[in-house]
Amino acid sequence: MSDIRDRLRVKPGHKVDLSSLDPDGSSFFDSKEDGRARLKESDAAIAELQDRLYAERARALLVILQGMDTSGKDGTTAAVFRSTGPVGVTVTAFQKPSQEELAHDFLWRVHLACPRRGTIGVFNRSQYEDVLIGRVRKLAPHDVIKHRYDQINAFEDLIASSTKIVKIMLHISKDEQAKRLQSRLDKPHKNWKFDPNDLVEREKWDAYVSSYELMLQRCSTEIAPWYVVPSDKKWARNALVGEIVRRTLEDMNPVYPKPDWSPDDFKVE
Amino acid sequence: MSDIRDRLRVKPGHKVDLSSLDPDGSSFFDSKEDGRARLKESDAAIAELQDRLYAERARALLVILQGMDTSGKDGTTAAVFRSTGPVGVTVTAFQKPSQEELAHDFLWRVHLACPRRGTIGVFNRSQYEDVLIGRVRKLAPHDVIKHRYDQINAFEDLIASSTKIVKIMLHISKDEQAKRLQSRLDKPHKNWKFDPNDLVEREKWDAYVSSYELMLQRCSTEIAPWYVVPSDKKWARNALVGEIVRRTLEDMNPVYPKPDWSPDDFKVE
Repeated sequence: MSDIRDRLRVKPGHKVDLSSLDPDGSSFFDSKEDGRARLKESDAAIAELQDRLYAERARALLVILQGMDTSGKDGTTAAVFRSTGPVGVTVTAFQKPSQEELAHDFLWRVHLACPRRGTIGVFNRSQYEDVLIGRVRKLAPHDVIKHRYDQINAFEDLIASSTKIVKIMLHISKDEQAKRLQSRLDKPHKNWKFDPNDLVEREKWDAYVSSYELMLQRCSTEIAPWYVVPSDKKWARNALVGEIVRRTLEDMNPVYPKPDWSPDDFKVE
Repeated sequence: MSDIRDRLRVKPGHKVDLSSLDPDGSSFFDSKEDGRARLKESDAAIAELQDRLYAERARALLVILQGMDTSGKDGTTAAVFRSTGPVGVTVTAFQKPSQEELAHDFLWRVHLACPRRGTIGVFNRSQYEDVLIGRVRKLAPHDVIKHRYDQINAFEDLIASSTKIVKIMLHISKDEQAKRLQSRLDKPHKNWKFDPNDLVEREKWDAYVSSYELMLQRCSTEIAPWYVVPSDKKWARNALVGEIVRRTLEDMNPVYPKPDWSPDDFKVE
């Protein structure tokens, strides 16, 4: 398979028109079974590469997931890191900032959550909330928000010294979101996932779309590219994200460190 | 199956003689296949219970793993939380304290790492290092270390207000450790796990055993019991820890929160 990342990556500086990008990822695969088989392969490869990354203890991988409500940030994480498991993988879900977090600049809490060398960090939401909900709801003055794109790029340049950064937008259609919200209303064990405020945000769909487009254009960089992953079909979404993460780790090519001793130097008694 | 925890739990205040506890856990199961089947059941049950815990967002679970080098703290975590995955589960591996950590009391870094409500935290090593390696290597004056057992108990009483605490000692024999260390020397992809210092610690085996025994006696409490899990057989170890974690979560019985709204109140448009 050719490098699927080339078809999903946002070219630095390029304008993005999300309405031109099909949210149904089926066409990337021969069939649903093909997609599932590819996810299984990626999942196993990621687990093995993570072991090498952990052993090497020299670099980290940060996977940032953003997307409209119900786009499946948790579900994607669970699927892609199924074999890897929780050892060496840290998931941070950024919620409404605490008073302590608000007492600092907007990147402070993000910096604290960055993965240490040897580990994989997954961000469920991230610094990008501050140019998404921040922009739509006008949570800060216009020029402050406008400046944040540059601040984020500078911040990512900093952490890139120890960390490979991959940013993924889970792209769903407005119709698919309606189905998923309805399912949260209909299924009692999913009720807890429904927040009446989700409907208020949904009314601002178009404003969010334009904020996402601006974010993609301003913050997809060589060192920290954005990928737009069609996510209406969960199986295709998981397979595509698995492919991105796997290929990124393969490029990093972590290696088991060579010991500075020989096994013959030691006798276990 | 009767509650396996009753056979593994250290009764508060009771003296423990580790040499009287068989490190081979095979006898808890009919066969290796039986053990594997039970782990699979526990693993699936834990994943479902974790989803409820996460939804409930009211309480946390903290699983503390201690054991001699090579006892399998990471391996156990990976096996028991395989289906749960990294979402909602945070693993903290406590290493040699940093200068920043040493600038505070010994429980400061532990407190920072405690799981938030709704999540599961796993500690690979913990505050107990300070009464294990701390005692064996005399890293602090005798009376300071002696006082730590009470300090730890008071600390656990505090965090128990939001968190269920389960403490598990992975009990291996000195012979089994020899095999595992030798395997780290023999297999190139395991070389990175070998630290020449492990052999220095191994020479102090008996001093460690008596420190473990004292820790178990002083710090197994009603609210935060210690379990000693025979760990020479990895499959039995994983099945036993899975059983402990599963039963603990079942006792907690987290529930999906009842919404304060009715699905009919909303229309997704």
